[in-house]
Amino acid sequence: MATTITEIVRNGVDTERLFGTLDAIKGQPTLGQFQFRARNRWLGGAHNQTTIRDFYGAGQEDTSRADEFVLDAGEPAILLGSDTGPNPAECLLHALAACLTTSLVYVAAARGVKLTEVESTLEGDMDVQGALGLDDGYRNGFEHIRVAFTVKGDAPEEKLQEIVARAQRRSAVFDMVTNGVSVTVEAEAA
Amino acid sequence: MATTITEIVRNGVDTERLFGTLDAIKGQPTLGQFQFRARNRWLGGAHNQTTIRDFYGAGQEDTSRADEFVLDAGEPAILLGSDTGPNPAECLLHALAACLTTSLVYVAAARGVKLTEVESTLEGDMDVQGALGLDDGYRNGFEHIRVAFTVKGDAPEEKLQEIVARAQRRSAVFDMVTNGVSVTVEAEAA
Repeated sequence: MATTITEIVRNGVDTERLFGTLDAIKGQPTLGQFQFRARNRWLGGAHNQTTIRDFYGAGQEDTSRADEFVLDAGEPAILLGSDTGPNPAECLLHALAACLTTSLVYVAAARGVKLTEVESTLEGDMDVQGALGLDDGYRNGFEHIRVAFTVKGDAPEEKLQEIVARAQRRSAVFDMVTNGVSVTVEAEAA
Repeated sequence: MATTITEIVRNGVDTERLFGTLDAIKGQPTLGQFQFRARNRWLGGAHNQTTIRDFYGAGQEDTSRADEFVLDAGEPAILLGSDTGPNPAECLLHALAACLTTSLVYVAAARGVKLTEVESTLEGDMDVQGALGLDDGYRNGFEHIRVAFTVKGDAPEEKLQEIVARAQRRSAVFDMVTNGVSVTVEAEAA
């Protein structure tokens, strides 16, 4: 009698729970509604700090996080800061890299592909004449972002490339960065 | 004889250097070209890590940063992670908060307004049926982001509101998140 050993955890992702989550949301679509949050506080000059902890998801306020995450931002000397953290545009590159990578790893797990390495380098080109208000011919943000992945795993190149492409089609941050999101800003000032 | 004391450092920003930088770029516009970079490595499951250090700006490779910044990302349990870091969408909220805040502080410094407090809370709404591939009626990313600032300083409310508005018009990440950026993704797969 043959024994089938099902590999449940693949790439560090519990695929049984992954498919269970998908089934749960299929059965009750309102479980798919999430709200993520961040609180930021200015600490002087280019230094500000974000704390992240609570969020809403799967039908309730999530209280599972033991601690809050604290993220600092800053600017390098040439942009009048003192390197208290990566600058905001670099933080956006981090968000993009992290999301594409997570999407790629989850997609591979769901498709039975075992990954051994996922690395990426990102470059964003910006002419600061835009953000500094010197020349409106330049936008404030990056003109273009290049992402270069190195992906290794137990599937042929064609399948790995397909997973990279699928990750782009399903990445939350890739969607936001490429397509844009409406943002409302309100201020209480005194 | 009256003595004029010029406050050079305002809000932690050296305004003399700020105006000096603006003049330098006006005189030699190619100094405005910057390239920011990030390197990300998958560490297992939803855990990946970005390192940030070198960048190009003001006509040369910048080597002023003594250390690299290390940023972790992860997912909470409900999204199959183990809270190794904020999730990528939360990282994007951090980037947005940090950029709006820095822009606001620099604009206020340039306009002679002394700030005493800048805080913000951000919320992003997302239905994960999009990113999970369950319902294409939902986008992958946030449907909408709300930013609420509390700003205090030595100027009347109207002027503080004007500074908040100006910060939006000059923020690199606000531009990218609201208008989108072209992103190319390449992969070397084996």
